[in-house]
This record gives sequence, C-alpha cells and structure tokens, in this order.
Amino acid sequence: MDTAQDVPRQAPARVADVVVGLDGDDTLWHSESIFTTTHERFHAMVGRYATDAAVDEHLLATEQRNLSLFGYGVKGFTLSLIETAIEVTAGRIGAEDIATIIGWGREMLAHPVDLIDGAGETVARLARRHRLVLVTKGDLFHQESKIARSGLARYFDHIEILSEKDPAAYRTVLDRCGIAPASFVMVGNSVRSDVLPVLDVGGRAVHIPYRVTWAHEEVADDEHADRPYVRLADIRDLPGLLAH
Amino acid sequence: MDTAQDVPRQAPARVADVVVGLDGDDTLWHSESIFTTTHERFHAMVGRYATDAAVDEHLLATEQRNLSLFGYGVKGFTLSLIETAIEVTAGRIGAEDIATIIGWGREMLAHPVDLIDGAGETVARLARRHRLVLVTKGDLFHQESKIARSGLARYFDHIEILSEKDPAAYRTVLDRCGIAPASFVMVGNSVRSDVLPVLDVGGRAVHIPYRVTWAHEEVADDEHADRPYVRLADIRDLPGLLAH
Repeated sequence: MDTAQDVPRQAPARVADVVVGLDGDDTLWHSESIFTTTHERFHAMVGRYATDAAVDEHLLATEQRNLSLFGYGVKGFTLSLIETAIEVTAGRIGAEDIATIIGWGREMLAHPVDLIDGAGETVARLARRHRLVLVTKGDLFHQESKIARSGLARYFDHIEILSEKDPAAYRTVLDRCGIAPASFVMVGNSVRSDVLPVLDVGGRAVHIPYRVTWAHEEVADDEHADRPYVRLADIRDLPGLLAH
Repeated sequence: MDTAQDVPRQAPARVADVVVGLDGDDTLWHSESIFTTTHERFHAMVGRYATDAAVDEHLLATEQRNLSLFGYGVKGFTLSLIETAIEVTAGRIGAEDIATIIGWGREMLAHPVDLIDGAGETVARLARRHRLVLVTKGDLFHQESKIARSGLARYFDHIEILSEKDPAAYRTVLDRCGIAPASFVMVGNSVRSDVLPVLDVGGRAVHIPYRVTWAHEEVADDEHADRPYVRLADIRDLPGLLAH
C-alpha cells in the first residue's frame, strides 16, 4: 500500500527537485493499437489489389511524404490512407470505400481514451512527489480532447502539445517552465521522440516501450547504443526508480 | 515617416501598459481567400450534380458536423470536401477527382503566407510600444508553419495557438502571460472569435473585418449590438487608435 499521501508534499521530494515529463500516446494511454486496428481493416479493404506488406510500405511512404505538410495525427493519417487506397487500386477504389475510410478516421478520433495498465495510479503517485509536465505530440485538437478525457490533466503543472519533439522544442518547454535540464526526466515510449532529444538538451530519459512502434518512430539500435538512458517494462516501476 | 525607433522602448508605452493581442488568419495574413479559391474549384468539379448554393450548404453542414471531432484547419476541411463530394454526387465521384481534392488540401497547406496590406509594418510599429501576443486558432502544425513563414514571429513576446477561441481559452492565455484583462486589447477579423469572448473576460477588442467571413464565424448583428468595441477598416490605423 502506498502511504505517501500522509507525507507533506513538499518534504523529501523537493530536495531532489526532479521534474518528470510524461508522454501521452502509448505511454499513458493506448494510441498505436487504434492505428493497428485501422491498418487491419485497410488490408481487408484493398487486399485483392496488393499484399499487406506492399500496402503497408506504400502507406508509410505516403505518410512520410505528407508529414512535412500534414504533421502528425489522425486527420493526416486518414488523408494518407485515402491517397494510398487510390494509388494501390490504380483508381479502382469506389466512393463508398472512401466514405468508409473517412468513417474510420472519425471513429479513431472519437475512440475512448484507454489508459495503459498502471498509468493512472502511477501519475497520481508521482504527482505527490514531483512537478509533472505532460509533453505530447500531434494534433492540438485531438490531443486536448484525449487529455481531457484521460482524467489525468489535474495531476500536471503544465501541459505542452508540440508539433514535433526535437531538441529545440524541448529546450523551449524547459525554458518556459523554468526547469533546469539536469533536473528533468522525460518518460515515454519513443526513443526517437522522448529519449534522444531530451538527452541532447542535457536532461535524463526513461524509455517504456509500447507493444507496437509506428515505423516512423523507429530508430536503429546502433544510433543510440552509447546513449545513457533507463528502460523500464512497466510504468508502475517509475516511482521506485525516481526515488533512488 | 515613423521616428518612434529613436524613443527608448520602455518610455511612454509602458505607462499605458497596453498588451495587444493579434489574430493571425485574415488579420495578419490571407487565409479565407485560399479557401474561397478551393470552393470555386469544387463548384466546377461537382457542378453537374448540384447548384453552387446547394453544394455550399451541404459542405457547411458537413464541416459543422465534423467540427467537434476534426477541429479547425485545412486537413479537416479537406476531409469534409471529400465527404461532401461523395454525398452530393451520390457516390458517382471518381477516385481521380478525390485525389485532386487531396491535392488541393496539400496546395492550401503549402500556400505562401501573403501578409495583409500594412500588417508587417504595423506589427513592427506596435512592437516598439507594446507587448504583443499572437493568438491564433486552428491546426498546430499549419499555424506554426505560417507563423514561421510570415516573418513576424520575432515581434511577439508570446505565441498562443488555440483549438478554440472562447472565454475560457482567453482567460488561460491572460493568466499564463500575467496580463490583466483591463490592459488587454485583442485585434482580429472575427467578431465571434476575437471580439465577443475577449469582452466577456473583461478585455477590449478591435474588429478589422476581412473581405470574406467563413459562414461558421458569422454572428448576427443583434447578438452584439450593445457590446462596446471598435471597428477599423485598415490595420494601419491601429497604432493611432492605441495611442489615444
């Protein structure tokens, strides 16, 4: 049982003065799994025109090409799905199927926010000892909606929704919140977005892998073999780690 | 000629201590006119299935219905265009036309940022006397891109991209920037988004109409006949107005 609630919030925690940054998608709540479901439906829809692997390859290339104009998020993904459907079927896809794809986009946006096991209790526990900052990436409107529906907003001193998680963006967040990089620990499922750029600005990072990683977020192991960060399998191990 | 640059920036300006909030789309740079161009292309595309008026009515209804899931911005607009195209043609629209619509969306996102006449010089001039805050609404990624390309970012002490401009959102911005509502003047082209919610939180507002208003942003005159705000025809009149 956790009895930390009897301890005055300012006491031992503020000695360490560690500020914890937490990612949202696939760190606090499920996101990629919703994309996976849509991928499966998409395979079924265009399966008679191309293999699943060819479809996935085409889709990823379309997403990568659109990223500099669309940014991240479900709406851009839905447009990339429609483009891919038209291209892999050589224009033979029907209007009804395209309407179905738009319906999937709407479903993804309306999907209930499912917290990852242990995330709710862990955030509540961390908030008693640390200043917490939520640092997410993606579509402003959808992220705000998910944060509101997660029920976790009240635990965060500050919420930042970024269009890209690069070192410059983290530097801006730390400046704005008056956080010294050395006292900042970022926690997230993406080595590319939550770990490497934070190390680059002098912070620390904890990687908690999700069961699937979007191909765009993948980085080769040899790109960061020498970078010091901690990997945890379960978010519930985070308070213990930070207590040491 | 403007010789204000010889005056120390802190001197008379900070006596009044007026903080100026400026909207982006259709206040500092053209936006709605780009949508108008797309509307015209869309009319030409589906013109043999429905009248322009019927198409516009259907499109606006689709946009309004999607707003609670899509939020504002070009990507959501593009998805609404595709849906409308499918519906007004009863599914007879071809995949090639849908690919064309996605291309329009990409063009809109990549469109150069055209400053409104006088906006550049006025912002530079205001920045010498006032703290400036840019308060825009819409898609995070696209707004950031437009702000960067506008060349005006350096004049602003703070930039806020909101998913919705309602009283609660303005209150959050004022709190975050430590601005007393009574010293805040918001300037923008939308009575609904830039004027009424600012008056509601105790600020002042200046309305500078753009030559077209998106139907969603329109408010009936009788909804605000008794609300005190100033209307200007030209942004270049703003420094003079604020000097009094």
